[in-house]
Amino acid sequence: MISDRLPPFSNGLQNIPESFIREILKVSAQPDMISFAGGLPNPEFFPVDKVAEAAEKVLTRDGKAALQYWVTEGYMPLRDYVAKWQSKKMGISVDPESILILNGSQQGLDLIGKLFLNPMSRVLLEGPSYLGAIQAFSAYQPDFHHVPIHSGGPDLDKFSTIMEQINPLLYYCVPKYQNPTGNRYDEERIHGIAKIMKQSKTILVEDNPYSEICFQADNVSNFIQVIPERTVHLGSFSKIVSPGLRLGWATGPKEVIRKMSVAKQASDLHSNTFVQRIIYQFLIDNPLNDHLNNIRSFYGNQAELMLTSVRQHFPENISYIEPTGGMFIWVTMPEGLKSRVLLEKAIAEKVLFVPGDSFYVNSNGGTSSFRMNFSNPTRTQIERGIQILGRLMKEMV
Amino acid sequence: MISDRLPPFSNGLQNIPESFIREILKVSAQPDMISFAGGLPNPEFFPVDKVAEAAEKVLTRDGKAALQYWVTEGYMPLRDYVAKWQSKKMGISVDPESILILNGSQQGLDLIGKLFLNPMSRVLLEGPSYLGAIQAFSAYQPDFHHVPIHSGGPDLDKFSTIMEQINPLLYYCVPKYQNPTGNRYDEERIHGIAKIMKQSKTILVEDNPYSEICFQADNVSNFIQVIPERTVHLGSFSKIVSPGLRLGWATGPKEVIRKMSVAKQASDLHSNTFVQRIIYQFLIDNPLNDHLNNIRSFYGNQAELMLTSVRQHFPENISYIEPTGGMFIWVTMPEGLKSRVLLEKAIAEKVLFVPGDSFYVNSNGGTSSFRMNFSNPTRTQIERGIQILGRLMKEMV
Repeated sequence: MISDRLPPFSNGLQNIPESFIREILKVSAQPDMISFAGGLPNPEFFPVDKVAEAAEKVLTRDGKAALQYWVTEGYMPLRDYVAKWQSKKMGISVDPESILILNGSQQGLDLIGKLFLNPMSRVLLEGPSYLGAIQAFSAYQPDFHHVPIHSGGPDLDKFSTIMEQINPLLYYCVPKYQNPTGNRYDEERIHGIAKIMKQSKTILVEDNPYSEICFQADNVSNFIQVIPERTVHLGSFSKIVSPGLRLGWATGPKEVIRKMSVAKQASDLHSNTFVQRIIYQFLIDNPLNDHLNNIRSFYGNQAELMLTSVRQHFPENISYIEPTGGMFIWVTMPEGLKSRVLLEKAIAEKVLFVPGDSFYVNSNGGTSSFRMNFSNPTRTQIERGIQILGRLMKEMV
Repeated sequence: MISDRLPPFSNGLQNIPESFIREILKVSAQPDMISFAGGLPNPEFFPVDKVAEAAEKVLTRDGKAALQYWVTEGYMPLRDYVAKWQSKKMGISVDPESILILNGSQQGLDLIGKLFLNPMSRVLLEGPSYLGAIQAFSAYQPDFHHVPIHSGGPDLDKFSTIMEQINPLLYYCVPKYQNPTGNRYDEERIHGIAKIMKQSKTILVEDNPYSEICFQADNVSNFIQVIPERTVHLGSFSKIVSPGLRLGWATGPKEVIRKMSVAKQASDLHSNTFVQRIIYQFLIDNPLNDHLNNIRSFYGNQAELMLTSVRQHFPENISYIEPTGGMFIWVTMPEGLKSRVLLEKAIAEKVLFVPGDSFYVNSNGGTSSFRMNFSNPTRTQIERGIQILGRLMKEMV
C-alpha cells in the first residue's frame, strides 16, 4: 500500500498485472533447480568477442559521436541496414525512414499502446498471448479479448466472428514461433486473416522477435508483406545478437512510425547511441547467417530432445504444438488437471515451468496448460525434468 | 494526417507537443551556423578511452552475463554505487533497493507520468519548465499550471497560493541549474517549499541532471534531503559520463520505486545490461571528481565569457539569471520585444537560440525570453554570436 500521505497511483498503473513469471524466476535461483520457466536465449551463443571488436572499432573511429545525444529515430546506417535486410528477406521495399530503432521490441509494445489506446479501446490478443504485451498494453486500460490459437493460427471463422463482434482497434499476434506456444501461422491463415483485416480499420501488430530462430527453411509470409498498409511490425536483436543490448525496431505505415517517434522522444529521447553503432558494426563485419545457423541447429536439437522426452514420459492424453522454431513448447493436459497444482508438486521436486493462465488476461484461460523453455536447460536437465513432470502428471490422473 | 483506413491516434498521443527545438536543430546543421540552440554537453569531455577500457574489461571478465537479459531494477553493483555516492554527497541514507536504473532521467519522467497521472490530474511546473518534462507528462493528459521562477526559485507566497488553489498531484522542478534558465533554488526556498509541500499530498519530482556541473562549491540542500518522504529524485549520467549511453536513475519512497519498476518492466523490460556494467566499471576505476572538475572549470569559463559578452553587447534593459552551474543562460527582453521575431532575424545572420515560449505549456509565456547554451559553441562563436544578437535587439527597440 502506498502511504496515505501520497496520492494514489494512476488507473493505468493499477491495471498493469505483475508478472507471475518473476515470482517463479526467484525460485529458479535455488541450487539444483531444473528450470523450464525462463525465456532466456542460451548465452553460449552470444558473440562476446565480436561485440568486443565492434565496440573497440566504434570508440576508436568515432568515440565522441558514439557517446553523444542522437536523433530519436536512430542511427541512420543501422536503420538503413535493417531496411535493406528486411526488404531482401521479405521481397518488399522497406524505406529506412520507416524504421524506428527501439529499446528492444518490448518498447514498441508500450509505444503502440501510447499511440493508439484510450481507456476501453478494444484489443484482440491471441489466446494464449505474450505476457509482456498484456503488461505493456494494460497501462493504457484497454478492453482485452482473446481469440484461441491452435497449430497454424486461429480458426478463421472464429476470427472473423470475433472481429465483427468487437471491431478491435488492435490485433496483436506473434505469427512466427509464438511465446508461449511455439506456434507458427500457416500461409492460409496469414492470407485469411489479412482478408478479414482489410474489411476493418484494425491495426495489426506483428511481433516478430523469434522469426530468425527457425529449425528449417520457413517461407510462410509475414503480415507486413501481405497487408503492409495496416501492419506495425516489430523486430528484435535480442535473439539474433544479444538481449542485454536492448535493441529492436519498428516498421510500418510512415505516419504511424513518425508519430511513434514523437511518443518515443517523450518517453526516453532516443535509444543508446553507442550500442546502435556496435550492433551496426557487428552486422557489417560478420556473416549473420553463419551465426544464426549455429543457434538454429542447437535450438532445433534441444526442441527435438524435449519433444522426444515428452512423447516418452508424458501421459498419452496430453496435447502440444510441435514447434518449428523459437524457444518454447506448450503442453495442454486433460481438462481436470490444473497446471498450478502440477507446478506446486514440480517445485517440490526441483522442476519449474510457467503455468498457462499467466498468458491470459486476468488468468482467464490456460489453466490446464503450461509453457516449457528448451533454449536454456542442458540436455541432461531436459531429459530428467520431463521425466519428473511425466511421473507427476500420471500420479495426478 | 493518418489515413482514414487507420484508427485515430490516442488522446494522449495527440496531446504531446512536438518539439520546436527539433525544428531549430535542423537549421543548425547549416554551415557557419552559430548555434546557442542545442542542449548538448561538450563532447571534448567525453571519456572515450576510459569507456573503451571499461567496455573491454566488462566483456573479457563477464561477457555472457553482460549480454543477457537482466532484472528490471538494474545491475546491483551500480545501484549500490549510486546509493553510497548519493548518501555520502547528501548526508542521507539511500537504500540500494530504492535505486531504479533508467534509460536516462527522461525515462523517469515518462514513468512518473504513468505512475501517477490520470487525464486532468493537476501538475504544477516551473515557468519556464523543461520541455522534455512537458512532453513526457503530456501523454497522460494532465492539467498543467506554471509557477513563475526567478533567481533563487519561485516566490514563496505565490507558491503557497497556487498550491492551495490547485492542490496539484505533482510539483515538477529542476532546483539546480535548471534547463532552460540556469537558475538554482536557494536554501530558503528549498525549506520554504518543503514546508508548504508537507501540508499537501503532492509528490515533488526533483529532476537533477545538472547538479554536478557547478561552477563553485554548492552546499544548498536537495529536496530529497529535506522532504524525502514526498520526493522522487531523478539523477543522470548524461552530463557526468555521456548522454549517448542513456543511463540515469530514480530514487524515492520505496513503494513508489517498486511500482515504478513495474511500470518500467511493462515499458521496456530493463535498461541495457552491458552499458550498466560499463558505467559501473568506469566509476570504480576512475576518480570521478578529477573528471568533473575539468568539465566544471571549462563550462564555468564558457558561461563567464557569454555573460561578459552579454553585458558588453546586449541592450541595458534586458534581464538574465546569472548561472552558477549547468549549460544555459536565460535572457528576458523588455515586454514589447518578441523572441520569435528576434530568432527570424538571427537565423538570417546565422545565429540560433531557443525562443522562451517553447518552455511553456501551449506557448503560454516566455514570449520575450530566450535560452542560450554555452557548453557547446567555441569561444569565438560565443563572442561573435552575442555581438550579433545584441545588435539585432538594439535595432528592434
